[in-house]
Amino acid sequence: MRTVTTFAGVRKENRGSIGLVPTMGYLHEGHLSLIEAARDASDTVVVSLFVNPLQFNEEADLATYPRDVERDGRLAEDAGADVLFVPSLDHVYPEPPLTAVTVAGVSEGMEGAHRPGHFAGVAIVVAKLLAGIQPDRAYFGRKDAQQLALVTRMAADLSFPVEIVGRPTVREQDGLALSSRNAYLSDEEREAALTLSAGLEAVAAVVAEGEGSAAVLEALARGAVDAEPRARLEYATLASQADAAPRRGLDTPAFLAVAARVGETRLIDNVHIDSAGDHWVTDLGVRLEGPSILYEEG
Amino acid sequence: MRTVTTFAGVRKENRGSIGLVPTMGYLHEGHLSLIEAARDASDTVVVSLFVNPLQFNEEADLATYPRDVERDGRLAEDAGADVLFVPSLDHVYPEPPLTAVTVAGVSEGMEGAHRPGHFAGVAIVVAKLLAGIQPDRAYFGRKDAQQLALVTRMAADLSFPVEIVGRPTVREQDGLALSSRNAYLSDEEREAALTLSAGLEAVAAVVAEGEGSAAVLEALARGAVDAEPRARLEYATLASQADAAPRRGLDTPAFLAVAARVGETRLIDNVHIDSAGDHWVTDLGVRLEGPSILYEEG
Repeated sequence: MRTVTTFAGVRKENRGSIGLVPTMGYLHEGHLSLIEAARDASDTVVVSLFVNPLQFNEEADLATYPRDVERDGRLAEDAGADVLFVPSLDHVYPEPPLTAVTVAGVSEGMEGAHRPGHFAGVAIVVAKLLAGIQPDRAYFGRKDAQQLALVTRMAADLSFPVEIVGRPTVREQDGLALSSRNAYLSDEEREAALTLSAGLEAVAAVVAEGEGSAAVLEALARGAVDAEPRARLEYATLASQADAAPRRGLDTPAFLAVAARVGETRLIDNVHIDSAGDHWVTDLGVRLEGPSILYEEG
Repeated sequence: MRTVTTFAGVRKENRGSIGLVPTMGYLHEGHLSLIEAARDASDTVVVSLFVNPLQFNEEADLATYPRDVERDGRLAEDAGADVLFVPSLDHVYPEPPLTAVTVAGVSEGMEGAHRPGHFAGVAIVVAKLLAGIQPDRAYFGRKDAQQLALVTRMAADLSFPVEIVGRPTVREQDGLALSSRNAYLSDEEREAALTLSAGLEAVAAVVAEGEGSAAVLEALARGAVDAEPRARLEYATLASQADAAPRRGLDTPAFLAVAARVGETRLIDNVHIDSAGDHWVTDLGVRLEGPSILYEEG
């Protein structure tokens, strides 16, 4: 694996078909599953590590976001990366961009409503990675469902010749969706956080029985979080996979997304609901069989 | 020369270094000079013909915009094009884009102020051409000075690995800057239209003598247009080449741009003012020695 720090450096390493896995570093098994999927489909696998300040709407979140390039490089290489792209802030933003990339509609509800500016930051940095690296495929986790919708639509609208691939959420043994922010949770908070995935499992169960009303599905997810005094719900919304627009019922591939704060930590999770011809199938992702590498001693 | 109708079709023809000349068709010697410049520097020269509805702020202008693909193909091939890209409206915009590309500041004054929405249309279509064709160089005329600034900044902000090349304005024998819209002018209007370039020649003359005050330079260009009853000035502005911001004096590479209506026809023109170390040099472009191909019988 080669480590490069410039877009031109990445392009020099590009051979054959290029699979890109954009990350903000501090890799966990969710990222590794993206790298492995890219490895299966690509001649060259590029993993980018860049903590993008423009997509943080809270300074404290940016300041405390964990960083460990050496650890990430080791993990990325073991998962099959050929190129590790670790640009400096000055390389990515030599001056504050005057250019903005916005995606109407897709960016407006849910995370867009609760994290002002977040998706503008995501859109410009992903546009830069697609423009500067020219991948054939780019891999994103389904855990960030609205981001996946936004990136897919932006790439199509701007004619980037890339396939945006969404991959299933990876969960810890107890069901908690993997996030580098999980490491911030106290034991008590972690216990409380499980209410998000428990609610989504209940949603998946009733969808399997034929329930398709957004009001019913959202009430199940909301009720689970509301029953946990240490969790404060931000939203529980059924939305279209294509454009992240809220739906009143299951009539298109969708996801039911929840966001909540547990203590100071903000968590999101969702269940994807995909079409299988004449019925709906749910995708809650996969569970690890042991503890996540997030908790390994450095 | 191959004619292709899809972005994927262009990419299949790409060999070596790619020079792109984006046009809205109805080629004149201004476009041909861009194609020739691309030919000198590139292994593959791609000329795109696409009348982009999103950059027209007046329906009548879009409806009457001249189109002749056969003529354009012949001219492009003779000038050195390898690939003619003629996409359909549906290929470029399979659905109305939700994504917007905006360039703050650069897009706000002059043309941006007088043509609402124009630069949003330019920015998205050029972003799509850069994303979908992946050129190494893209060629634009200095006649559209603000557009050149906008595209240059957008390409840099989005990390497109492209050099944006601005080329001198090509003028008719009498000094009128070439534009497909010149064909709309009556003989009387054409006579009146010459006041734009005459004013800019006066500007160039005083810059050569050391004048650098925006107020003085703008007054010269404005006065020339105001003295012509058939011309109605929209603006006369000294602006920076880098970001199209108005300047109070010559302290950075700049252009003095004018816009005026002559009858129903809207015309723009400018003189570029470049740095040559310790002094300024003006670029009014080049004049044809005979009539433009715009006036040839089909």
